[in-house]
Order: sequence, then C-alpha cells, then structure tokens
Amino acid sequence: MTTLSLTTDFGNLNGFVGTMKGVIWGIAPDVNIADISHEIPAQDIRTGAIALWRASVYFPAGSVHVAVIDPGVGTKRRAIAAKLGDRYYVMPDNGLITPMLEDAEAAGLEVRIVHLDKPEYWLPQVYTTFHGRDIFAPVGAHLAAGVPLNKLGTLITDPVRLPLPKPFRTDEGIEGSIVVIDVFGNCSTNIRVSEVADLKIVKLDIAGQVIHEVLPSYGHAKVGDLVAVTDSEGFIEVAVVNGSAAKTFGIKLDDKVRISFDA
Amino acid sequence: MTTLSLTTDFGNLNGFVGTMKGVIWGIAPDVNIADISHEIPAQDIRTGAIALWRASVYFPAGSVHVAVIDPGVGTKRRAIAAKLGDRYYVMPDNGLITPMLEDAEAAGLEVRIVHLDKPEYWLPQVYTTFHGRDIFAPVGAHLAAGVPLNKLGTLITDPVRLPLPKPFRTDEGIEGSIVVIDVFGNCSTNIRVSEVADLKIVKLDIAGQVIHEVLPSYGHAKVGDLVAVTDSEGFIEVAVVNGSAAKTFGIKLDDKVRISFDA
Amino acid sequence: MTTLSLTTDFGNLNGFVGTMKGVIWGIAPDVNIADISHEIPAQDIRTGAIALWRASVYFPAGSVHVAVIDPGVGTKRRAIAAKLGDRYYVMPDNGLITPMLEDAEAAGLEVRIVHLDKPEYWLPQVYTTFHGRDIFAPVGAHLAAGVPLNKLGTLITDPVRLPLPKPFRTDEGIEGSIVVIDVFGNCSTNIRVSEVADLKIVKLDIAGQVIHEVLPSYGHAKVGDLVAVTDSEGFIEVAVVNGSAAKTFGIKLDDKVRISFDA
Repeated sequence: MTTLSLTTDFGNLNGFVGTMKGVIWGIAPDVNIADISHEIPAQDIRTGAIALWRASVYFPAGSVHVAVIDPGVGTKRRAIAAKLGDRYYVMPDNGLITPMLEDAEAAGLEVRIVHLDKPEYWLPQVYTTFHGRDIFAPVGAHLAAGVPLNKLGTLITDPVRLPLPKPFRTDEGIEGSIVVIDVFGNCSTNIRVSEVADLKIVKLDIAGQVIHEVLPSYGHAKVGDLVAVTDSEGFIEVAVVNGSAAKTFGIKLDDKVRISFDA
Repeated sequence: MTTLSLTTDFGNLNGFVGTMKGVIWGIAPDVNIADISHEIPAQDIRTGAIALWRASVYFPAGSVHVAVIDPGVGTKRRAIAAKLGDRYYVMPDNGLITPMLEDAEAAGLEVRIVHLDKPEYWLPQVYTTFHGRDIFAPVGAHLAAGVPLNKLGTLITDPVRLPLPKPFRTDEGIEGSIVVIDVFGNCSTNIRVSEVADLKIVKLDIAGQVIHEVLPSYGHAKVGDLVAVTDSEGFIEVAVVNGSAAKTFGIKLDDKVRISFDA
Repeated sequence: MTTLSLTTDFGNLNGFVGTMKGVIWGIAPDVNIADISHEIPAQDIRTGAIALWRASVYFPAGSVHVAVIDPGVGTKRRAIAAKLGDRYYVMPDNGLITPMLEDAEAAGLEVRIVHLDKPEYWLPQVYTTFHGRDIFAPVGAHLAAGVPLNKLGTLITDPVRLPLPKPFRTDEGIEGSIVVIDVFGNCSTNIRVSEVADLKIVKLDIAGQVIHEVLPSYGHAKVGDLVAVTDSEGFIEVAVVNGSAAKTFGIKLDDKVRISFDA
C-alpha cells in the first residue's frame, strides 16, 4: 500500500479536501491518505513548504505528497510533479518545492521534475479554480498507482524556487530567524543545534529577551520560563514552558535570532 | 475497497467522528473513509447538503455517504438510506438529501430510498442523542460491506425535501443568490455559468457593487479586485483576488445576485 | 486490518499528526488510522483521557489507541503501553490511562502495562521534544503489526493515576460535576442515568438553574429550553435545545450538579 499525503490551504469547512480524497480513491483505491495540514494560511507558500518539508521526510519510500497552496490557479503557472530521492511530490510550480529540492540536491539524491502537460491523467473536465481536485489529486493518485513519472509530463530543469531565509555567521556567532510558529506558540528558528559549539554556553537574543542555554526539552525548566530547546527536527526553538512564547513576547515569523558563542 | 464519506456538524473537538470511524471499521475493516466536513454550522441542514452535494459526485461508483446534521435526533424523524444512481446516502430524513435527490431525478437515475427500521443493522444499544454512532455509522458500514439496501429498511417515496433557492429569469437576465461562502470568503451563487449568454458582456449586481465580466480565474485580475469567476462546480462565484469578498463587502448567504445580459 | 486511533493536543496546523501517520504507515501499511481529536486543550490530560475513554470502547477488538498529551515530554516521565481487555493503549505515563484502566479493573478484564524501554521499536533518532513521532507512533504501529506487548517494554504495576471526579450520594440524591463540554455547548456530568431512580421526578440544580425532568432527547423540548437529557454514553447531560448551555448559562468544567430524587 502506497501512502499519499495532502497539504493545502483549503481549511476543513467546505469539503474541498474530502472531494480530493474521493477523486484519489476512485483512481487508486488501495492508497493510504494522510492529511499533513489544511490550515496553511491562505496563499502562504512558505509556511506550506515548511510543513511539508518537515513532515514528508518521515514518510516511507515511494510515498506521494500532493500540496496545493496555489494563488496562481488558472493562470499560466505550471503544474509539476517531482521525484526527489525515493519520494514523489505533486504541486503548482510556485516555489512550494524549494526546501525538499534543496535537501535532495545537497544530499546528491535523484532529482527529476516534470511539467504536468498530459491531460489524459487529469479529470475529464478541468475547472480553472480547482486544480487540486482536477489535476493534482488525479496525478498523485496515478503516481501512487504506479504510473511512471515521465508519462505524466515533460522533463524540466527550471522549477520556480523560493528559498527560505538562511542563517549566517557573524563575528560573535550566528544570526538566523524565526521560520515556524506552532500551535502552542513555540517559535522555531532556521539555526541547527549542530551549528552551535556548546549548548550550555550561549547568549541568544530574541524579541528583546536573552536566553543563556539550549535545554534538551521543556521539562528542564519551570512552568512559565522562556527557554531555548532543540525542536523536533534538530533546530533551535524558543518556547515558554506550558505557555506561548509567541503570545507572551510578541514573537512573529521572520523575527531575528542572534546567538553569541562566547557568552 | 469501497470509499465512504462522512459529513457532520460535530466539529473535531470531542471525538464523535473518530468514534463513528471505530464503529465503521469494526463492521467493514476494508473501507476507505474520507471526511468531507465536520465543521458544518450546527444544525445547518442546507450548508451540509450543499457540501455533500458538491463533493459526493467526485466519489467513485458504489461509494457510501453518511451525513449527520440532525437537529431532530431522538424524535420521530425517520432515518433513511438511499441509492441514487450508483452512489449510496445514509442520513436523517430532514431534507439533507434534497440536492442529490433532485439531480438524480433530473438525470433519470435509479432512485430508491428506505426508512431505516431494521435494528439488527444498528449498534445493540441506541442512545437517543447520538444516532450518528449508533444507527448511521453501522448502516453505512453494512452498505459498504455489501448488505443490499432493501435489507436495511422499508421502501418509502416521500422523503422530506428542503429545496435550495433556485435562480429565475428576469426581463434583463437572471436573478439568483449566494448559496455557499467558502473558507477564503469566496461567495458562490446558484447561477450556472452555462446560463449566461456571453461571459464578457454582463452586468452583475451584488451587495451594492457592479461587476462587468465573468473571468476564467482569479489570476486574470489584480490582487484586491472584486471579480466574478467560474467556481469549481461551474457556478458563478464572486471573489476578491487573494482576499475575502465576504469580509470586504459584507456578503452573506442568501444575498441576491442580479445579472443583466445586455450590459 | 487493524484499526489505530490518535488523540493529541497537537492541533491540525503544523503537520505533527500527519508526520505520525507517515511513521505508522511506514511500519504497518495495512492499518486503518482514525483521528479521535487533535484539539484537546494544550496539556489538558483529563480532557484527553475522557475523549479517548468515550471513543475507544466503540473500536473493534485488537484496536490500538495512541494518545499524546504530554507536558512532561523529554523529562524522566515514562512512556507506557497497555493491554486492557482486548484493546491496546500507547501513551505517556502521566495519568492519561486512568479512566480506561479503572473500567478494565472494575470489569475484571486483563490488565498488562509495560514501560516502553526497548529503543529498537522506536525511530532511530529520538528528539526530546516529539516522542509522539519518535516513540509513541512507531510503538503503536508495531503493536498493530502484531509485535507482542511484552517485547516492547518491561512490565510495571504502578502507572500514574489521575482519577476523574466521582459523584457521591447525598441525603437528597446525588452530587456530581460537569466533566465534558462538547462543541455544541452541551455539558455532560459524571452522573449515570442508571443511578437516578425516576427520570421524570428529579430536581437538578446547575449554575443557579433548576431542571425538573431528564428527557430522552433534545427534540422533546422547545428550541431554546434548558433541558437535562441522557448523553451518548449514558450520563446525564445539560443542554439548551439548538443552543449552547455552556454559553447561555456560563457553565464550566467542574461546576457542581446536584440532583434531588424527591423533587
């Protein structure tokens, strides 16, 4: 059984996601379907890309990942499907693929991307406002059912890229930014823990606050403390124990995080 | 593998939907279950009917659709199951079935409806406040597992109908209303695009605004523009590009939409 | 096909739940996965325990229930798995298991609990902040795939218990409290209907209001009435017909409910 994931900004109110599942199971009745998120903020390509990036690496080899955050639906933006290593991705060509693509390239994995230009793998009637149902869902289902990638479209080498902000070295240490705020108000940075020399000797500046250590987990501090911890993907995260760092300190996406190593 | 869908107003907080899935998989372990929506406004039969109507046509032949928006639970309102063409529906007899039934009748499809009066296909203990779990889920699962419709109840021909508002011709063109507002604030009407003579020559009045063309998609106008487009089921939809028409112009369900053809 | 359920306080925004499904289907591709709730209030062990307790009894024999409400993640709190009768539970050892365990003990069912101390059944890399993905999901998947409980950890007999408030007899009748408030604002008590001598002759005090009968269902009163009914698990529930008792009367969790039998 192949596993397929869905990531969209459709919400769960109007039945768009359920409709896509009806289409997918009509083509590939044996596929498992996992929802990654349907609450990506409307048209927020970067947040969708990060959610998919963090989740899809935990899916089995051969899994298919359909993502639809698609402000350009119905215009000339391309629809694409990609094989990155042993996973497949199906989405609009608007930058959504960037973090998965960069990782695959950095790891020297197989990278093949096709422009989806074969309507025989779509629904017979394609509406200009819902390619998630009419193009992306059926293409993902055909991939999961075993149709080879090269039958679904024409090879391209110029996908749209929308790189995430990258941390950089400074004289004192490293500067990055907040790239994910989760439902608890925990704020993850783009700085890997492995880039910090000594987690017990740091000076971390965020939103006018200073933190002096990166802890193994929330439980190593008192309820209400502002702490830095290792997040679930190995990045440094700023959190309030059993509270919301985002709300308490007004932390927002793209806020700067400065770490000094000789604190 | 049969596909079964669930549409309710239960929300996703208290585990009611998960409980129904436990019941269904206990009876029919091989069925695929798709959530259409569990965020139908409480007791809003019409919104539930529209969500199911728009989604279920995209499900494969043989699919089973269980819908529970059920303000009359525990009273004498009947529980029903229907075969409409090659799809099955299981729900309270309160009008929820209307748009699917009208379409099946208009298309000359097979229509068979039974009153669910065979407790041997329900859970052994039926509580008066949760027929979704105790009657509708097990009946849907038995249908998905291959029990014939006529074993589940007694044939009826008088299901409760709750017709949607219909558009009508006027001297100048056509008048309809807003029947769906989606999570983006896009407002769909009950006017099919195919009823409009020339999409480039219209005068559309909605909420005190005038629109002069029905575009193929949002991407054909500027961010922030109020536009009319073809929605994902072929109806005319009023939208703000990358914004919310509902919020910006205070558009509500049942607001009138007047289209003049000689604009 | 085994059925597995997930109950967490992760929300549906950031992809944590989808990631767990990717892990589970990577180990046990044939398992059905039902979401019970991912909107348990953050770190609210009791609400999570009640949601799982009420739902999991409706799942088939052999089902596996993974629950992650885990304020102590990354500290020395144990991870456990339990066989209670013919169902399995996987969760942190923080009291989450209590109502299921008490029921199993009261019914004389088999009770076996292990401390999850065998890392060969976890993901290779365990982060201190996401045991749901790295420990609980893979252990649940291995159970669903047929690994015996005793291979997953070391038998214990002292799980952490967090008993729910219990109702008690008074001179006039019985006193309990509100333990569940659902998405409609219906307020369930911990008083079983079966403990009330005559449902037509009661005097029920809640939030300064008095109710004089326990009805079979909402439909037996007028829209807007405050009523007591039998909830979907056989407990007395206080509700406003087609409205919200919680909002209208400011009812909160733990509010006292006093029932007098000689009303």
